[in-house]
Amino acid sequence: MSFDRLQEKIDRLGNPTVVGLDPALEHIPPEILNRKIEENGENLEAAALAVTQWNVVLINALCDIVPAVKPQSAFYEALGPYGAPVLKMTIDYAKLKGMYVILDGKRGDIGSTAQAYSEAYLGAVTVGGTEIRPYDVDALTINAYLGSDGIKPFLDMAVKYDKAMFALVKTSNPSAGELQDLIAGTDPPRPVCTVVGDLVERVSLDTIGKYGYTRVGAVVGATYPEEIEFLRKRLKSTFFLVPGYGAQGGSASDAARAFDKNGRGAIVNSSRAIIAAWKKSGGDYAAAARAEALRMRDELRSELSRP
Amino acid sequence: MSFDRLQEKIDRLGNPTVVGLDPALEHIPPEILNRKIEENGENLEAAALAVTQWNVVLINALCDIVPAVKPQSAFYEALGPYGAPVLKMTIDYAKLKGMYVILDGKRGDIGSTAQAYSEAYLGAVTVGGTEIRPYDVDALTINAYLGSDGIKPFLDMAVKYDKAMFALVKTSNPSAGELQDLIAGTDPPRPVCTVVGDLVERVSLDTIGKYGYTRVGAVVGATYPEEIEFLRKRLKSTFFLVPGYGAQGGSASDAARAFDKNGRGAIVNSSRAIIAAWKKSGGDYAAAARAEALRMRDELRSELSRP
Repeated sequence: MSFDRLQEKIDRLGNPTVVGLDPALEHIPPEILNRKIEENGENLEAAALAVTQWNVVLINALCDIVPAVKPQSAFYEALGPYGAPVLKMTIDYAKLKGMYVILDGKRGDIGSTAQAYSEAYLGAVTVGGTEIRPYDVDALTINAYLGSDGIKPFLDMAVKYDKAMFALVKTSNPSAGELQDLIAGTDPPRPVCTVVGDLVERVSLDTIGKYGYTRVGAVVGATYPEEIEFLRKRLKSTFFLVPGYGAQGGSASDAARAFDKNGRGAIVNSSRAIIAAWKKSGGDYAAAARAEALRMRDELRSELSRP
Repeated sequence: MSFDRLQEKIDRLGNPTVVGLDPALEHIPPEILNRKIEENGENLEAAALAVTQWNVVLINALCDIVPAVKPQSAFYEALGPYGAPVLKMTIDYAKLKGMYVILDGKRGDIGSTAQAYSEAYLGAVTVGGTEIRPYDVDALTINAYLGSDGIKPFLDMAVKYDKAMFALVKTSNPSAGELQDLIAGTDPPRPVCTVVGDLVERVSLDTIGKYGYTRVGAVVGATYPEEIEFLRKRLKSTFFLVPGYGAQGGSASDAARAFDKNGRGAIVNSSRAIIAAWKKSGGDYAAAARAEALRMRDELRSELSRP
């Protein structure tokens, strides 16, 4: 089961964190970006080559201490037609280096379209009689606003190809509550985010793996610690992906509430604080990312080892 | 204002419809796909070349009678690294032939990520000192589950580059109501889809164009005619994109409820019924698509001209 694979990578490194590969051009060291611009001109090709190189540097710096990366699809799409090849190379390289890859695409659709997304990222496309895996990531983030029709095609593919996904439940942003906190329905009345969380757990209960978690996890932001605690107790079989730690204001003790009593069942994301660590520390870019990743690991370890 | 441009194209052709370019491989005429496989092998390159050719055939067959196309991003992403160039070529060719292009990506994110998506599709990326428009579509579909943080970055970009977007409000699928129909909140209590619709209209009211519509439209499925009618009355300044006509079960008279009293303010989508019309009619592939597009146009015209 796919979260078993993730949990085992986490356990092996003693590090329940994932690094967001969100290569906004302003977070790429200028030496890398400027060299590519000198060689190629001020164009998307230069940007794409810089992103590729920077991702390789980051993956090399992190792969022996961090179990997973989370490329954020938007930053690759912003490279236009060059984006898809860069995304593919980034995914392939991270997997080659032993990392678990979560694509953060927040895809949400139904029917044959959800099928196409799940073929693209979790499964395979068949051309003639040949099956080809377009991206073959380990897990994908999805948006369940469309209801169970928007989850099941992904789940079927995840079962077939030993993959997983995370559905948005309670996001980390300031306006998350405009919709997600409203009390909804009568069965019983509960916040919209809980409705979605319950749905996510219900549709996936027959996919529980050896650590007790299904193949459909939930995104629950560290910026809302009370909701994390409530949802952790309620959704006993749902693995949590926790954004919002660090730059967005969530603390290690907030994020720690996402874990079960064995210190499992969750992974905490950090993007900018790690990939743009060089801006604060100066010096070697890769060393800066590694130092921040180690600091985050140790901070979470220490939080999770409290009695 | 961007929906003004769309409305003018609709008015000029007397046709408030958009054709979904959803090139699942099984909807591509076998003569086209098989030739590419013969030339290139059973691989994603062959699939990508077949999709490109089929889209060109469809755009040529439709551009003088249909005002807009809606490429569904999932089917391009399923082409892996070849998908982004095919999407780009499809968008460019449709625009060259005078069509309005709505990218159906249902993107939803916040902060710098929403900024990156909006740069990718509606605006521009800056490399060095040069501004480059990666895709430059006319409108993008978005998912507002994350609240206004997930709309505003797109809206800012839309204002700057004269673009528009459609947020999912009430989708056309059977399970849409699991979340979207729940009565939520206290201000006053209303269905989740109405909460989202109200939010969409509220954040965009200062972008009303000459036909009375803002830059943030709403996706409202033809399969739920009562909700269309209710939402049309309530969201007076919101342009509607209406999926679910035809194959999914929505009739022309259902879809007609999305329009204002002047027969404006909405556009109805059809995908499979047009692009896979050749499966039913046989004969010339392009002629089959054109005949079905004309049939749909005439059916909607007739519905909208009823007193």
